[in-house]
Amino acid sequence: MRASNYLFSTLRNSPTDAVVASHQLMVRAGMIRQVSKGLYTWLPTGLKVFRKVEAIVREEMQNAGSLEVSMPIVQPAELWEESGRWKKYGAELLRLKDRHGRDFCLGPTHEEVITDLARNEITSYKQLPLNLFQIQTKFRDEVRPRFGVMRSREFCMKDAYSFHVNEESLQETYEIMHQAYCNIFDRIGLDYRPVLADTGSIGGAYSHEFHVLADSGEDDIAFSDASDFAANIELAEAISLKTAADPATQEVEEIFTPDCKTISKVAEFLKLDVTKTVKTMLVKGLDENEQATIVALVLRGDHNINEIKVEKIAGIISPFEFANEQDIIEGIGCQPGSIGPKGLKEKGIRIIADRSAAVMSDFCAGANKDDYHLTGLNWSRDCADFEVADIRNVVEGDPSPDGAGTIVIKRGIEVGHIFQLGQQYAEALKATVLDENGKAKIMHMGCYGIGVSRIVAAAIEQNFDDKGILWPASIAPFDIAIIAMNYDKSEAVREECDKLYNELKAQGLDVLLDDRKERPGVKFADCELIGIPHRLVVGDKGLEKGTLEYKNRSSGENQDIPREEAINFILSQK
Amino acid sequence: MRASNYLFSTLRNSPTDAVVASHQLMVRAGMIRQVSKGLYTWLPTGLKVFRKVEAIVREEMQNAGSLEVSMPIVQPAELWEESGRWKKYGAELLRLKDRHGRDFCLGPTHEEVITDLARNEITSYKQLPLNLFQIQTKFRDEVRPRFGVMRSREFCMKDAYSFHVNEESLQETYEIMHQAYCNIFDRIGLDYRPVLADTGSIGGAYSHEFHVLADSGEDDIAFSDASDFAANIELAEAISLKTAADPATQEVEEIFTPDCKTISKVAEFLKLDVTKTVKTMLVKGLDENEQATIVALVLRGDHNINEIKVEKIAGIISPFEFANEQDIIEGIGCQPGSIGPKGLKEKGIRIIADRSAAVMSDFCAGANKDDYHLTGLNWSRDCADFEVADIRNVVEGDPSPDGAGTIVIKRGIEVGHIFQLGQQYAEALKATVLDENGKAKIMHMGCYGIGVSRIVAAAIEQNFDDKGILWPASIAPFDIAIIAMNYDKSEAVREECDKLYNELKAQGLDVLLDDRKERPGVKFADCELIGIPHRLVVGDKGLEKGTLEYKNRSSGENQDIPREEAINFILSQK
Repeated sequence: MRASNYLFSTLRNSPTDAVVASHQLMVRAGMIRQVSKGLYTWLPTGLKVFRKVEAIVREEMQNAGSLEVSMPIVQPAELWEESGRWKKYGAELLRLKDRHGRDFCLGPTHEEVITDLARNEITSYKQLPLNLFQIQTKFRDEVRPRFGVMRSREFCMKDAYSFHVNEESLQETYEIMHQAYCNIFDRIGLDYRPVLADTGSIGGAYSHEFHVLADSGEDDIAFSDASDFAANIELAEAISLKTAADPATQEVEEIFTPDCKTISKVAEFLKLDVTKTVKTMLVKGLDENEQATIVALVLRGDHNINEIKVEKIAGIISPFEFANEQDIIEGIGCQPGSIGPKGLKEKGIRIIADRSAAVMSDFCAGANKDDYHLTGLNWSRDCADFEVADIRNVVEGDPSPDGAGTIVIKRGIEVGHIFQLGQQYAEALKATVLDENGKAKIMHMGCYGIGVSRIVAAAIEQNFDDKGILWPASIAPFDIAIIAMNYDKSEAVREECDKLYNELKAQGLDVLLDDRKERPGVKFADCELIGIPHRLVVGDKGLEKGTLEYKNRSSGENQDIPREEAINFILSQK
Repeated sequence: MRASNYLFSTLRNSPTDAVVASHQLMVRAGMIRQVSKGLYTWLPTGLKVFRKVEAIVREEMQNAGSLEVSMPIVQPAELWEESGRWKKYGAELLRLKDRHGRDFCLGPTHEEVITDLARNEITSYKQLPLNLFQIQTKFRDEVRPRFGVMRSREFCMKDAYSFHVNEESLQETYEIMHQAYCNIFDRIGLDYRPVLADTGSIGGAYSHEFHVLADSGEDDIAFSDASDFAANIELAEAISLKTAADPATQEVEEIFTPDCKTISKVAEFLKLDVTKTVKTMLVKGLDENEQATIVALVLRGDHNINEIKVEKIAGIISPFEFANEQDIIEGIGCQPGSIGPKGLKEKGIRIIADRSAAVMSDFCAGANKDDYHLTGLNWSRDCADFEVADIRNVVEGDPSPDGAGTIVIKRGIEVGHIFQLGQQYAEALKATVLDENGKAKIMHMGCYGIGVSRIVAAAIEQNFDDKGILWPASIAPFDIAIIAMNYDKSEAVREECDKLYNELKAQGLDVLLDDRKERPGVKFADCELIGIPHRLVVGDKGLEKGTLEYKNRSSGENQDIPREEAINFILSQK
């Protein structure tokens, strides 16, 4: 591509509403423009990157045996009524009426359409397993679209759906897809983690998210520093470093702790490390007779409660809810800031201690008496009747649940998600096949999504500096830029540039020849902003010496290379 | 691709609502499935063809210097209000509201969005000309979607838009696009014609449609049998074979013609050739004082009126409207079936004769008296005061307007359309650039569309037989099928098939290996139905002789070829 025929649309300044680096850089580098809130036009530079990502995703899906299809964006309401989601799905599902007044929606996902296709086209177990994918525009009417194409309303997804006669077959394809996703992100060249995830609103039994690690990510991911273990922080199992409590060495002492309503205040006042304190929270529960009651949760002072884990415990109300202050004062006789485990059982309150709290000794807790705390507490001696459960978020330094290494926590951007849907949709839409014995069986399904447009933004979040974007080679808009100094005036430069341009293109490289009548500074800045990995400067001075000036975008390394070695040198850098 | 891992979804019968061959065959060949009226899912076989068409279109657009972008499907109402089309565009524009109640539409075309982009990104004449294209989903809420993907509601278009500082530049790009379109349809391998066209509702000055010739086409195209001339039948100029009338040889005679209300009845009754008669039609017009009046149009008996041509004549009401019967009876004194030119002028009625009618002699016409006709009429002697204009449709055998050859009429399917939009949209959206003198100028625009999904259907309409589709090689879903006889039972067959499969794939061919446990008849039928151009049958019998059985889909030619020559033979057939 000759720059004189190209649309750069680079900008010096970021739009005021762009708060994350990828959004700022995509606008500044002339990759995208907002048409309306959450709706973007992809300009040539942006679309070139997008198409490279798309091609890798398509190729790896095909390599994994998935067949490409394409379903409509506009979907009839009837199918969503069959699955029950026409009513259940919130306002993100953009509903509309056609000219005849019939109900449709813009597809935020395609489970209904594909399950309808499967029930019509798949009749026998012999056709299974079947794995179908599409790369297609989706629409989710986000309340607050933000971060550019990271959370836009219209976006492009690769979504795949697999169909199976039983769970084993689903598990096999799930593993194939897991590997295909790793291949995709490896090929693109991203630092990512497949993490165990919650299945969320799509439903189903088992799922992994694929996260690109970046400080601007919206999710916390816990992973091991020594193994493959990685999980969404809500799901990561929290293990105690100790297996049992040390023997008691202190006696219980009641201490007046005025104005100490928080754990940190108590620890400071008593000059105790916060890890020697516990916090006790009262939440709503149900007793054996399904009557409303209060349950006490005890955590080490520096740990945070994990509501998702708590909700899964029998006898606790879901969704998780704290007890009212009034109920606490009536049931226990003190304000919430002074609660502790000792004596609660006697008041008929069930106690659940987190694993790490349960192995503490000589610890401090509320005295169940306003403005008083107890020190020197020991479970077995002072408060022996309690349960133990995992009810906290993991923290860095925790042992990894798989027994290898310790937990590190980083932020991630979700770019892929694979689910074992099970039979949920197939059951709702009665998608059955005949098995070996001629009996109708409801199919098992998997679904596998990748945010194609989001990958472009996530790649930037992980790879940029103060000059612009640092693309991984696989998805850079151009492989190399040839910057011509005085292309219009120097015949030697012009000839050399045209020759290099043709030679590099003949090698299959995507080449930008900057032949514009612009100052060198403008050309260098554009080249660095849009993140072209390699740059060759062609000027009269160098040509007299027989050299070209090479610069590597990511290392910043700059060197003169002999003209005749240029092509081989560039190829060796790829 | 191994057939055992593929989704054929072929059917024996056509859906009852499919009336054209392409719709029937696309459903039967497992290419598409209807999700809702005018909304289709593309299955693997269909999408493979679609992607090949898309790739050719993209490559040729890039070769022609157009830059790819991608605009959103959901478009804000504001832009359509600026262009004036929010109100003007009919119910085909699907309007919708987002969760905040703001107005949007599903883009049936993208003039507004691209012009908005251009006014923001293009500031100087130095950036021009600029040509941007996208390959994208469009939505038109057709009242009566039909013919499968030929006229569906959701479909894929390649639309391009060019921007210019003046008309000359627009004309240059228009010609480049005209050539690019020819390259696209040549490469796909279709019999097509670029035809002069009406600009229709998009507006603008000059346009060509690209039609694939097929009996099932919805448009009549007139083209020369000896030159490049081709035009939509409404636009083709109708030339008279004769330049002047022969001298009169007959006297005028008034004949009683009872019950002869039509030209064919009159000709039959009088034993005259219909080309010796004229028909006279009265339409609404305006006189010099803008008062309502009646105008007489005279055509040769076998010719048909062209309303678009008539509307362009000064003094005739547009849209074209016939005079009321009451006005005719009052103004002329007879029923519409007995009108003729002689005597009309005396009644103050303007007469316009078609070019071919104007050179007739000794002809027959209505006598302006119920149940009477005149024979032996001659213009100069009997009715000298009349105008001449082109007011009829061309017919086969007419001279071509470019002077070379004669007109042939065929039916066509519109697959592409290029327009010179001029300044219409740029003016409405105030899209200006600074010219060489620093003065703001409104840009000139061109727009260029190709129906990507429609090409797939049009290619079938032009290429099918009673067994199925006959794809042009460039867009066939597979280049070649290897049909294995007893793949599961014969080790020799299995080895040979796998070897051939890998060898042909290594040559870059898209190969289908039919390894299914199906009867040979089923495999042959599927292969012919989905239209794979080349077929090799591998069976034990042949292998014993060292041969494979080759069949060409379009010629039907069948031959045994030695095993060792198979690869070269196939490559030579491509």
